[in-house]
Amino acid sequence: MSRRRIRIGVDLMGGDSAPVNELLAVADAERQLPEEVELVLIGHAERVKEAVQRLKIRLPRYPFVHAEEVITMQDDPTLAVRSKPASSLVLGMQLQREGELDAFVTAGNTGAVLTAATLLLGRITGVGRPTIATLVPTEQTRPAVLLDVGANVECRPHHLYEFAVMGSVYAREMLGVESPRVGLLNVGEEAGKGGRTLRETYQLLKQSWLNFIGNVEGRDVLRGVADVVVCDGIVGNIVLKFGESLAAAFRARLQGLARGSLWRRMLFWLLRPALRRAFREFDYQHYGGVPILGVRGTVIVGHGRSTPLALRNMLVRAQEAVRRSLVQRLETAMQLSAVSAS
Amino acid sequence: MSRRRIRIGVDLMGGDSAPVNELLAVADAERQLPEEVELVLIGHAERVKEAVQRLKIRLPRYPFVHAEEVITMQDDPTLAVRSKPASSLVLGMQLQREGELDAFVTAGNTGAVLTAATLLLGRITGVGRPTIATLVPTEQTRPAVLLDVGANVECRPHHLYEFAVMGSVYAREMLGVESPRVGLLNVGEEAGKGGRTLRETYQLLKQSWLNFIGNVEGRDVLRGVADVVVCDGIVGNIVLKFGESLAAAFRARLQGLARGSLWRRMLFWLLRPALRRAFREFDYQHYGGVPILGVRGTVIVGHGRSTPLALRNMLVRAQEAVRRSLVQRLETAMQLSAVSAS
Repeated sequence: MSRRRIRIGVDLMGGDSAPVNELLAVADAERQLPEEVELVLIGHAERVKEAVQRLKIRLPRYPFVHAEEVITMQDDPTLAVRSKPASSLVLGMQLQREGELDAFVTAGNTGAVLTAATLLLGRITGVGRPTIATLVPTEQTRPAVLLDVGANVECRPHHLYEFAVMGSVYAREMLGVESPRVGLLNVGEEAGKGGRTLRETYQLLKQSWLNFIGNVEGRDVLRGVADVVVCDGIVGNIVLKFGESLAAAFRARLQGLARGSLWRRMLFWLLRPALRRAFREFDYQHYGGVPILGVRGTVIVGHGRSTPLALRNMLVRAQEAVRRSLVQRLETAMQLSAVSAS
Repeated sequence: MSRRRIRIGVDLMGGDSAPVNELLAVADAERQLPEEVELVLIGHAERVKEAVQRLKIRLPRYPFVHAEEVITMQDDPTLAVRSKPASSLVLGMQLQREGELDAFVTAGNTGAVLTAATLLLGRITGVGRPTIATLVPTEQTRPAVLLDVGANVECRPHHLYEFAVMGSVYAREMLGVESPRVGLLNVGEEAGKGGRTLRETYQLLKQSWLNFIGNVEGRDVLRGVADVVVCDGIVGNIVLKFGESLAAAFRARLQGLARGSLWRRMLFWLLRPALRRAFREFDYQHYGGVPILGVRGTVIVGHGRSTPLALRNMLVRAQEAVRRSLVQRLETAMQLSAVSAS
């Protein structure tokens, strides 16, 4: 059976060390990805050529699109998207809108990616706020979907409800959870906990078709009590960044220990493979990146520090999202939800 | 020079395994605490007697106050405080109000402790919302003060401002930071980040006498960028509980590794002291507990799971808070702040 060709655009100028990690990821992508996947590389031709020569790699013969401008991590998202139409980020979104790409992968300025996706691809009907989710490891066999981590501020109850719907679709289609348990992140389990927004959201979720299990607390997330954990963008952003920094602090302490006496260095060297296996899921590279949910297109955004491994995993995610028709599934779910929420 | 006597009430019925850990903490408190400290034990006489016999310990000859009722972790805070006037928690607060105690230490239901302290001791003039802070380890030599973690929901800008003032006084008096750097926990560094409440708080803090360094992100907390990190009770509660569970998950993975083959068990046994030293600050026992800030009295509240070590550290904290006149310092600072904020 011949499968449909899937064209994925790659933003070569996105990450903190772009285009280096992007090029390293793309260089051996051919071996890693199914043959029906074709990449389209988007970046600044000269800077890419320079980096290819310096890295002494050979790129597969993928189509290349020159992007004269670059959006940096320091750029203001909305301003950057409007003032840099020739950036790799904006070009990638436009190519997808025109049907030239099935998906777009970037490790760029997250705010700018969210803005560009919303402006250029448009929102799915019924979605007020496109969102970014993240996967967090749990004690169970599967990670949980935590959203919004896209810094959507001042979320109203219906926004949080949308996040719950989209998170459920993501968990079902991409993680294979049949009836994803949805939890509302709060300061206690009782229905009356939290401020007005959280209380109203609780009622909306309770009345919905979702598998809502009630409020969950900060300590429940890693226990895997819920498959989908819903919160506003301020809480999500702070929890995610705090969690990442805590994991990094732990790693740093372990590494510090491993740099002690010769004797201790030897002990750690012996334990290294076991340590690595045990903490693999706490490493963001493991999941790569996550899609922007709620826009009419497939956009996978990763950490600015994305390694070649993380970027390769993002390409795999993009391909899966296209194959499983994630965008269409989200559209259907939002239609269904609009009816049941009215 | 003879020092003034300090009387500290101890809630024997507070923690999850009460009165066991409380009694173990109190049993050798005499050796640990300065001689001018006298403890007053408050608990259910029969249950305490039973536990003392079972544990085969001898209690120092401290005064004992019988409490017929017990407030549990499952009790609703406000209801419990009103309906159980003979509980150790309520009695402890009353004794302090009447001047019989200088401080009160408990590992009980945090919500009930906050409610009882507010109702029975009263608020410091100018304080709208008494708060609970927590200490988080940083890469610097000192921990940071994170507040509110007392689940104060729907905080207005002036509440967050109060938290900043009280956190600063705590950092100065109890941690010895001369001019504590205050950061507002937000989704980005720019002044315009976050919702309306955060933006207005930013302006309030900027105009104040505090050493305000601007917004800090979730990843900045452990870096020790700020000495005082201000957030609303929802964010604080979720970040704290998520962080605790992440630290616990890391420990569990390490312990899981240490239970592997005989060879691996041996390696871990050899590394154990170094691991323990490296991660000590991530253990809540290290700090013990933190005071309720903003009430007219010294109340130290600890984790329900507080070990004897944690409880002993809480007694030390209580004694320090009394000696350094923390409550009077907070009163002065609130007076000063009311003027500068008007």
